[in-house]
Amino acid sequence: MDNFTFYAPTYFAFGKGSEKLTGKLVKRFGGSKVLLHYGGGSVKRNGIFDAVVASLDEAKIPFIELGGVKPNPRSGLVYEGIKLCKKKKVDFILAVGGGSVIDSAKAIAAGAIYDGDFWDYYSGKEVVKALPVATVLTIAAAGSEGSPHSVITNEDGMRKRAAEGEGLRPVFSIMNPEFTCTLDSYQTACGITDIMAHVCERYFTNTKDVETTDRLCEGILKAMITESPKVIKNLRDYQARANIMWAGMIAHNDICGADRKQDWSSHRIEHELSGLYDVAHGAGLAVIVPAWMKFVMKHDVNRFAQFAVRVWDCDMNFADPEVTALEGIERFRNFLKSIGMPSKFKELGAKEKDIPTLVKKLGVTENKKLGSFVKLGPEEVTAIYRLAA
Amino acid sequence: MDNFTFYAPTYFAFGKGSEKLTGKLVKRFGGSKVLLHYGGGSVKRNGIFDAVVASLDEAKIPFIELGGVKPNPRSGLVYEGIKLCKKKKVDFILAVGGGSVIDSAKAIAAGAIYDGDFWDYYSGKEVVKALPVATVLTIAAAGSEGSPHSVITNEDGMRKRAAEGEGLRPVFSIMNPEFTCTLDSYQTACGITDIMAHVCERYFTNTKDVETTDRLCEGILKAMITESPKVIKNLRDYQARANIMWAGMIAHNDICGADRKQDWSSHRIEHELSGLYDVAHGAGLAVIVPAWMKFVMKHDVNRFAQFAVRVWDCDMNFADPEVTALEGIERFRNFLKSIGMPSKFKELGAKEKDIPTLVKKLGVTENKKLGSFVKLGPEEVTAIYRLAA
Repeated sequence: MDNFTFYAPTYFAFGKGSEKLTGKLVKRFGGSKVLLHYGGGSVKRNGIFDAVVASLDEAKIPFIELGGVKPNPRSGLVYEGIKLCKKKKVDFILAVGGGSVIDSAKAIAAGAIYDGDFWDYYSGKEVVKALPVATVLTIAAAGSEGSPHSVITNEDGMRKRAAEGEGLRPVFSIMNPEFTCTLDSYQTACGITDIMAHVCERYFTNTKDVETTDRLCEGILKAMITESPKVIKNLRDYQARANIMWAGMIAHNDICGADRKQDWSSHRIEHELSGLYDVAHGAGLAVIVPAWMKFVMKHDVNRFAQFAVRVWDCDMNFADPEVTALEGIERFRNFLKSIGMPSKFKELGAKEKDIPTLVKKLGVTENKKLGSFVKLGPEEVTAIYRLAA
Repeated sequence: MDNFTFYAPTYFAFGKGSEKLTGKLVKRFGGSKVLLHYGGGSVKRNGIFDAVVASLDEAKIPFIELGGVKPNPRSGLVYEGIKLCKKKKVDFILAVGGGSVIDSAKAIAAGAIYDGDFWDYYSGKEVVKALPVATVLTIAAAGSEGSPHSVITNEDGMRKRAAEGEGLRPVFSIMNPEFTCTLDSYQTACGITDIMAHVCERYFTNTKDVETTDRLCEGILKAMITESPKVIKNLRDYQARANIMWAGMIAHNDICGADRKQDWSSHRIEHELSGLYDVAHGAGLAVIVPAWMKFVMKHDVNRFAQFAVRVWDCDMNFADPEVTALEGIERFRNFLKSIGMPSKFKELGAKEKDIPTLVKKLGVTENKKLGSFVKLGPEEVTAIYRLAA
């Protein structure tokens, strides 16, 4: 185990009707004028927006609206939000939506009290302070409701980049699993894939003696394997939705990986795919993560065998652990297929001939490699994209 | 899954040297005059006390000392601490020690800003506000470093009672596993038992559809099963100590059980044992928990079979799941024996003839039963003590 600090002070209200606490919680966490940030019209059509507004009204909290967040949220709307917050003296950002809306809200929260360009934070500057941000979550996927991260795509070059820092940890998150029951099968499966990928990015580590967090990672993955098919079969299965929603938070608030060096190559490699083709992040991950696993597997066959045995119930091949390791990756890929996820470039509309462009945009060089479990240069990243193509 | 709120805003600094952050963290969390609370002389002998004082001195934070906390901490010292805090205008309580010291510190923190008798909080009143309390943990066991609970024994009748509330959640906890390396085998095993019991009290529930938190509970138990024998074999195994220490926090900060009705009968039944005979809480639990399990097992054989198969690697007896369920309990008891824990009254110095006294002190009646998984009246509690005798 490595030394670490862990600080996850988000207040969670979970379950049916929890949105009724919105106004009360905004007050508790110091909001007096709110920017209500959301995406397309779905939260307006399905009544979630109205429920949140009713709760704010009841608590007599004034708010202004900014909708229009798109999947793979863009810098343009963030700039607009920052300007609006400064002009209207907003002191609290409330995101109503999924990871994209939350990440856009976090970017606005950071930029609203910063004199420079908010993109500095997406170029390596730590977000120590931001306006308080809170969420009413509508998709179990990104884990942004409990994480100190945000990912934004800069329209200048369609560069998708991440920011990090304590200032980005939501002060509260409302998690009503009913809100996720209207998602279609594809959106749901994309979320499932993202949650499982968040665990995998932590699980494959070179840090030794991490049994406790390994077991937590494995536990979350096992729960996802049990609950996901139930939801895909019956999109309105509240209990399975609830289990996945809570798992999605735990998968990314870092309780499962605070003690270890993490990797995040798969996410970075995927970001270029969703940046270039505007495909769903989860679908991109379904293609990239197993390819990454196959490519790096020989670096630590025993860890992949552990993954196969403990998570995927493979029998250990003691004579040849590599067989087991590969079997685990294969079962993971088949699981993703079974919930409707793609496994190849063409299913995403991605093209093999674009691989050099993807590698270039990723900005990896021989001197600036990616990842930590296995360090990846341009050649290695190219090989991973090829395995996925 | 039940509806719930979850709020665990403790800042954790984990690993070698983390005690050097003490002064800085006291400042960050608003302390300007500290009550330094500890137990016997061991923290002074082994250098932990000096390291903490050095860090406070470096940050120029004045403090006063109050030592002398005993295992199963007493109300007498709490009253003394409250008086001292009020007189000296202390605004921050820092516990250096294990669960007993932390629980005593929490009681003082609550009482120091309360006009009534602090014992009100241990008689059912919720602790909404208290002075900020922080910990430098020296024993992995109670989980009090990340929990909103405290247990105190009132010298008037040796009544051992618990208090609860957000005000009792530490603002920060320093967790250096090296500090636990000087514990002897018995103390270590008592801590291990307490940690595992905290998971079990959550695991055995009537709440349905709790797969995600079930998997987390099972994961913590599996990690304890792997790491505990390493520590018992080599008390200075830093990595195993570290895994157990982090598991001990997670086992009790409620991330593993926020979504379910919990039981806590075993703890309550044990409290009377350690209250009457002043035995170590963990040792008492080693005797009581398996007895409780045997008594309630038939209420939900499938859940006990799940415990046996997933945690203890038992083969499922599909023809007779009860066989599997019993086998799981037996393996748990044998595991506790293997790390040096008792399994019967006489090993604790407890007497079968005292059972009526224990039941009476517990205050359970036909109209005021104990627990939630199975409701226990005087007759049932008597039967459990008998099974343990």
